[in-house]
Amino acid sequence: MKEIKELGARARAAERILACAGANIKNAALQNIAEALVFYAGDIISANAKDVENGKNSGMSEALLDRLRLDDKRIAAMAEGVRDIAAAADPVGNVIWGETRPNGLKISRISVPIGVIGVIFEARPNVTSDAAALCLKAGNTVILRGGKEAINSNTAIASVMRRAIGKAGLPEDCIQLVTDTSRESATALMKMNEYLDLLIPRGGAGLIRAVVEGSNVPVIETGVGNCHIYIDASADVDMAADIVYNAKTSRPSVCNACESLLVHRDIAARALPAVKARLDAKNVEIRGDEAVGSIIPGVVPATEDDWGTEYLDLVISVKVVNSIDDATEHIAKYGSGHSECIVTESYEAAQKFLSEVDAAAVYVNASTRFTDGGEFGFGAEIGISTQKLHARGPLGLKNLTSEKYIILGSGQVR
Amino acid sequence: MKEIKELGARARAAERILACAGANIKNAALQNIAEALVFYAGDIISANAKDVENGKNSGMSEALLDRLRLDDKRIAAMAEGVRDIAAAADPVGNVIWGETRPNGLKISRISVPIGVIGVIFEARPNVTSDAAALCLKAGNTVILRGGKEAINSNTAIASVMRRAIGKAGLPEDCIQLVTDTSRESATALMKMNEYLDLLIPRGGAGLIRAVVEGSNVPVIETGVGNCHIYIDASADVDMAADIVYNAKTSRPSVCNACESLLVHRDIAARALPAVKARLDAKNVEIRGDEAVGSIIPGVVPATEDDWGTEYLDLVISVKVVNSIDDATEHIAKYGSGHSECIVTESYEAAQKFLSEVDAAAVYVNASTRFTDGGEFGFGAEIGISTQKLHARGPLGLKNLTSEKYIILGSGQVR
Repeated sequence: MKEIKELGARARAAERILACAGANIKNAALQNIAEALVFYAGDIISANAKDVENGKNSGMSEALLDRLRLDDKRIAAMAEGVRDIAAAADPVGNVIWGETRPNGLKISRISVPIGVIGVIFEARPNVTSDAAALCLKAGNTVILRGGKEAINSNTAIASVMRRAIGKAGLPEDCIQLVTDTSRESATALMKMNEYLDLLIPRGGAGLIRAVVEGSNVPVIETGVGNCHIYIDASADVDMAADIVYNAKTSRPSVCNACESLLVHRDIAARALPAVKARLDAKNVEIRGDEAVGSIIPGVVPATEDDWGTEYLDLVISVKVVNSIDDATEHIAKYGSGHSECIVTESYEAAQKFLSEVDAAAVYVNASTRFTDGGEFGFGAEIGISTQKLHARGPLGLKNLTSEKYIILGSGQVR
Repeated sequence: MKEIKELGARARAAERILACAGANIKNAALQNIAEALVFYAGDIISANAKDVENGKNSGMSEALLDRLRLDDKRIAAMAEGVRDIAAAADPVGNVIWGETRPNGLKISRISVPIGVIGVIFEARPNVTSDAAALCLKAGNTVILRGGKEAINSNTAIASVMRRAIGKAGLPEDCIQLVTDTSRESATALMKMNEYLDLLIPRGGAGLIRAVVEGSNVPVIETGVGNCHIYIDASADVDMAADIVYNAKTSRPSVCNACESLLVHRDIAARALPAVKARLDAKNVEIRGDEAVGSIIPGVVPATEDDWGTEYLDLVISVKVVNSIDDATEHIAKYGSGHSECIVTESYEAAQKFLSEVDAAAVYVNASTRFTDGGEFGFGAEIGISTQKLHARGPLGLKNLTSEKYIILGSGQVR
């Protein structure tokens, strides 16, 4: 698509200017964005009202409408998020490693921007300002392609941000929005490795799969979290019940929520009733295997599909396992490599689980809900990577940079 | 293709064992490989003779035949390479970062294997042992898919390596070779993101492009090097001529060789004859623009195609530029992001070039030929990354690892 390529060419042109901009100018641009978001909140809310109206007319669920809806408070939170990013340390230009070689060459590795980043996301308009601010801070130009459900909101937010950074002296094309929300525009973006250095999909499993399968641009997979908690034979049952309750119910719609519970056979008769008692308080639906059903009568029988499902809802699958090996094998088979937890009092079991389970975050005796840039102390994040290349876990500012070697010589030849 | 998927499933199964193997067992396996390569050198050389014979019959160039050919000395060098990898520090299980959070959670980030790595390469059989040894040391299982020209050699080498690691107690499937060298087998490998965590193409620009365009597995692009040297107005002309001579002629077939020379107009009348005098000693063909032709009569006129060409031969394109900005713009347009050099005595020009040129390695006053794992002090490498995700520049053992967060709690919930 010609118009998408045009955005790409503009992003590349802006990139060369932004990459060399100092932290002062980038931070001034971010402060301008924060101010402008609040100043033009009325315009943004009017645009958002159209999206909400359209969503209601097309039968959007109340949960999705809630994600879509903006008000003064939410816009103030968006602006605050941008200010936090302005206040963070600059991730560009840091020396990561350096050495003088025997021949006198001074080699160092420094952090540099990645270049042009594409972000494909769904119907949460706050992603527009979050993603743009994170990319800008790390010296990257961004092409945003949000869902059609939020197109009026996104257009208004992007327009406010573009003017704000222009006033700080940066090219407005450091932030661009794809206004064509057809499937074709997303496909065109995925095929544009000439102009894009990285593509980040933010959204549901279907979106992420489509981008991974269809893209010739390097992709960082984010978000799908089929997270397990394994209650070991030696677990403290009260602690286990607390952790399961927190990981399942504190925010069921997010990727670090627990979706599946594995319980060692030797503790199942004590642990399962304790867990159920806690989950009942929030009416969590339990889908269990036969062994679970024999301890908690009346649970919905789990099918094979349940083990691989990210419910994002007040539902949990539960299975009794014969050993920690059964648990780690189950996780290797069904897990999405996001966050996995063991509850145990056994040193040996803890070590075994930590070393054998392959996921972005592996926990002993803590809720999976901590897998988060803020909770890890990284500040804002653009998603949680569940792949193994480039970055794994919460993607903070540092993960939005690349590196280059600079080599200072005095005429050395080889 | 069913058989390629079968290799994938086996690689995944072996991965879980290898990932938890300690450095001792991995190093013993590598030592076994080194010994076995030498012990079975006769078998490998016989197999290689068939490839060389087939190559001759199909009219393979002498340069390619030379890359293909194995003898005792080359096999000893392969074994020595594997021993060096055994002797290197283990890249797995290192704590990269760690912190205790205010809530008492102890978070650390540790290096872990990537998982299953596919390597697609052309007709250099030594890549088989290099790539397998590097992957094994970093705890990754590998699926090797070499060119059909070296299939007999590769089959012999892989068979020797598999038996050697089996004797050390590792699954032989840690190292697998795709014996089907049809285009379909490469395509199947590229589409196998269920089983492969990373695909590394090693070879010419055509191969790399095909893998980048066709793969749903994360790829690290390696190798294409359209490297420039820019002789600034303030350059030391003798140093410049030395560096150009070295970067162009010391090994023209490699990716860090210089392919294109940019000369500031103010120094062209002095620098070009000096450079030409050096290059003439090796009969380097100069393809120049008009301004070059007016200083060195009789040069081949450069066409637009020359600026983008990686000759890998004793040919160099040369252009006179009006300013350092013209030089960095030319590099941004035609460079492949590999290695770029400025020769200058000006502090300002050096700083400007270092900050504005976006490449894996940016040099002041040294030959581009130094972009190499050994020269950078990293030991063996599996290629030079010219992309910005995960790793840029020489890919050593550390770059063949991923990370995971481990979080130790005492019942924390959020």
